[in-house]
Amino acid sequence: MNETSARRRTRSGGGAARRAERSAVSFETAKYIERNIPNFEVLSEEALEIIETNAETILEEIGVNFVNNPGALQLWRDAGADIRGERVHIPRGLARALCKTAPSSFTQHARNPDRNVEIGGKSLVLAPVYGPPFVHDVKGGRRYATMEDFRNFVKLGYMSKWLHHSGGTVCEPTDVAVNKRHLDMLHAHMTLSDKPFMGSVTEPSRAQDSVDMCGILFGNDFVQNNTVMTSLVNINSPMTFDDVMMGALEVYAKNNQACIVSPFIVGGAMAPVSVAGTLTQVLAEVLAGVAYSQLVRKGAPVIMGAFVTSIDMNSGAPTFGTPEASHITYGAGQLARRLNLPFRSSGSFCGSKLPDAQAAYETANSLNMGLLSGVNFMLHACGWLEGGLVASFEKFVMDADQLGALHKFAAGIAIDENAQAMDAIREVGPGGHYLGCAHTQANFKSAFWRSDLFDYKPFETWAEEGSRDTMALASARVTKLLSEYQPPAMDPAVNEALAVYVAEKKAGMPDALG
Amino acid sequence: MNETSARRRTRSGGGAARRAERSAVSFETAKYIERNIPNFEVLSEEALEIIETNAETILEEIGVNFVNNPGALQLWRDAGADIRGERVHIPRGLARALCKTAPSSFTQHARNPDRNVEIGGKSLVLAPVYGPPFVHDVKGGRRYATMEDFRNFVKLGYMSKWLHHSGGTVCEPTDVAVNKRHLDMLHAHMTLSDKPFMGSVTEPSRAQDSVDMCGILFGNDFVQNNTVMTSLVNINSPMTFDDVMMGALEVYAKNNQACIVSPFIVGGAMAPVSVAGTLTQVLAEVLAGVAYSQLVRKGAPVIMGAFVTSIDMNSGAPTFGTPEASHITYGAGQLARRLNLPFRSSGSFCGSKLPDAQAAYETANSLNMGLLSGVNFMLHACGWLEGGLVASFEKFVMDADQLGALHKFAAGIAIDENAQAMDAIREVGPGGHYLGCAHTQANFKSAFWRSDLFDYKPFETWAEEGSRDTMALASARVTKLLSEYQPPAMDPAVNEALAVYVAEKKAGMPDALG
Repeated sequence: MNETSARRRTRSGGGAARRAERSAVSFETAKYIERNIPNFEVLSEEALEIIETNAETILEEIGVNFVNNPGALQLWRDAGADIRGERVHIPRGLARALCKTAPSSFTQHARNPDRNVEIGGKSLVLAPVYGPPFVHDVKGGRRYATMEDFRNFVKLGYMSKWLHHSGGTVCEPTDVAVNKRHLDMLHAHMTLSDKPFMGSVTEPSRAQDSVDMCGILFGNDFVQNNTVMTSLVNINSPMTFDDVMMGALEVYAKNNQACIVSPFIVGGAMAPVSVAGTLTQVLAEVLAGVAYSQLVRKGAPVIMGAFVTSIDMNSGAPTFGTPEASHITYGAGQLARRLNLPFRSSGSFCGSKLPDAQAAYETANSLNMGLLSGVNFMLHACGWLEGGLVASFEKFVMDADQLGALHKFAAGIAIDENAQAMDAIREVGPGGHYLGCAHTQANFKSAFWRSDLFDYKPFETWAEEGSRDTMALASARVTKLLSEYQPPAMDPAVNEALAVYVAEKKAGMPDALG
Repeated sequence: MNETSARRRTRSGGGAARRAERSAVSFETAKYIERNIPNFEVLSEEALEIIETNAETILEEIGVNFVNNPGALQLWRDAGADIRGERVHIPRGLARALCKTAPSSFTQHARNPDRNVEIGGKSLVLAPVYGPPFVHDVKGGRRYATMEDFRNFVKLGYMSKWLHHSGGTVCEPTDVAVNKRHLDMLHAHMTLSDKPFMGSVTEPSRAQDSVDMCGILFGNDFVQNNTVMTSLVNINSPMTFDDVMMGALEVYAKNNQACIVSPFIVGGAMAPVSVAGTLTQVLAEVLAGVAYSQLVRKGAPVIMGAFVTSIDMNSGAPTFGTPEASHITYGAGQLARRLNLPFRSSGSFCGSKLPDAQAAYETANSLNMGLLSGVNFMLHACGWLEGGLVASFEKFVMDADQLGALHKFAAGIAIDENAQAMDAIREVGPGGHYLGCAHTQANFKSAFWRSDLFDYKPFETWAEEGSRDTMALASARVTKLLSEYQPPAMDPAVNEALAVYVAEKKAGMPDALG
């Protein structure tokens, strides 16, 4: 029993809690991925140095804007930057030096300590889609997302073996007022799942609510001494840090909570229409953002993010799973490792309107590059549709199934005596058959990854069963999973305290729109 | 004008040929891929040495069978192998030494010299699906393939910008007798396309027909001095070389034509249920097969093949796009490079019955691994469905479109001054927009790869146009391409001579079944 579980058990206290724990069904979740494979490195040392030099030139010559944030400007001035209006010019080398106090790896705690994740190094943590205002399923089509949809996605995430993280805004619950929905979302993550989750970033006060609710869930002392949230702070590319996002970052950093500092770039619009230029801007922005987190609190956990995609110059639509996005992601992974920072990128990205072949090609391209580029935190790892406008129920379970393949690939190739299988080759010999041999019998159960969703049946069986495509199989799986959902064990007193907090907060403010 | 085109022009001779050339429409084909990216290497030096040592142990201790082939046994005996019955025991190091005379790279000539391909080194040549007895399209469903289907696939291949090669048995024309269909297939490749192609391997006499028909197309001297076919010779794994396949290899090697020496392995059935064991067996088989090609004719061009997939231990079905297949392909690429041989693997592999999301996930996994593993010749690069039982018209154009992304990714990342885009970043500055800047205007046309098939439109436009999924878009594209097809220019005399050869050959033999 480690410190966390001991502490929790003490807090849980009474008989009701113990009864709840005993009766609860627990769904299996794989441990976060620990890569036993190399990273794919596409940029040469020379190219990396050019990009790093140019990024420092951007910070010094051009500078970055910290908008509506006199406090931030003061921190930068004290650190030695040259402030002109809201523009911060950062002397060559300063931002990189400030980044050194950020940890290269950190633990994000879950309320179930078995679900804790390590973010950084060789680890890869998979979290679901974030942010779509719409949802889609085969039966109901495309529609505005509701809090019921949100809860259903959290349930699916909890039940997905290959998903390590419950995520954040898995969809925008548009039936709840903008200033209140973060409370319901956090409550859902905290009660319907026991996996780690993300906090709100849409207002500094909502970030504070997130910290306060974590205080109830984990205990205030625990929150101050451990990271229990990893939240998404986007930079307004190019080179603009707005007060809302920075305000959230400030709350989290002060409370020792992690932020992903992530440029949000559609190449050709928010960054140059070239890979090297985009990487340069991404690096400059991340250096400034991460450095700022360390000015707020030295040692605050932070992730270098890179959400970058290309644009279709015909229609202006963002495109996904493209070779340029892969180039940028591989390059950004190299830059992150040279900064010694955890790296966030990739996801189940696609532009398709349906979870069809386009969606799957684009997504598979993106998931593969994510694994091989050394991503440590993969947001949007399942469920993303239509350029992120839509969270798809079917695609959620389709992608979540594919994530199993990443686990197996990342484990690398065993080369011990059993794996060499020389006895099997001797036993079977030329012209023989391996199905019945001793080595096959001993190893077949764990030898090959197997999809839990795809159809592997003979054509005739498949036709008799209705010639279902992947969408239809996924739809059936969504229905089955949601019908079988059972919440994880939870201390009823904590659950009640969270409900009271949410109710009181909501009662204290009128509904806000947008 | 190079040697080939000069010679052809001479041969073409008369005015009819020149008129045919002038009036013909030519479809754009991209040059074969020349990688400007590293390969992904998953095995350590130590693991590679273990596998290589074990492969030599297989060859020496266990041996390989050359069945019904006294000539082959004699060649092996003369080379120093120990022959016991049909079993060939190859002393440690002998096979590897024999392989050294195989070229590390060779040119396969096409009748249009612009379509010549280089096989080996950093090149990647893409060829379509091979072998399915069934075809599938959305309108007609799944049915036995006919010669008309075959011709349509050759036309689609000719019109596919990203496909460099016309392939071989793109589907089995089951309406033509088994002993005659190779003639019609070759005739189709030679006349309906001007891309390079593959010869017949189902009987040594059919390989000889292939050589003879190439004599008509290219001139006999040219064929003896240049490689104009790359044909697929499968090993009956484990460790069995049958007389039919070896007979074809002998014909091709003697005539300076290339063969892919390729184990055909469903892991767990024809090889051990482990990655390292499978790689060991693959290497042993390839060493024996390639060495044999060099015994037949020193310097004969040959490719190390590895068709390897895993098995679903529940149903016994082969599975595709799996992490184990990726491990094996990456490892096999490393082994091929250490042998200094061109490498064939990967393809548009999938087990799905439809060109749906399952098909696309599996295919994208496979195409990505093919590119990064250093494959030089990718057979089955488009059109594969249902474990290779089916050639799909829709999937052919879907996959062929994705192959464009491989070209762009393989080109690597430019790092010159234009790509660094520092002037653009200076021009736009914090909070600006890149769409209108000078750098974007100058570069946007070639900046980003764009699918010619996928839907990038806004949701509303897409819905108004009928909410089509990728299958529907692909079906429309197949219809459009086939309606626009025009044959490449060809000397009518050569065309006629080929037709006469086919007719005379067919007249001389009764139909054979199976």
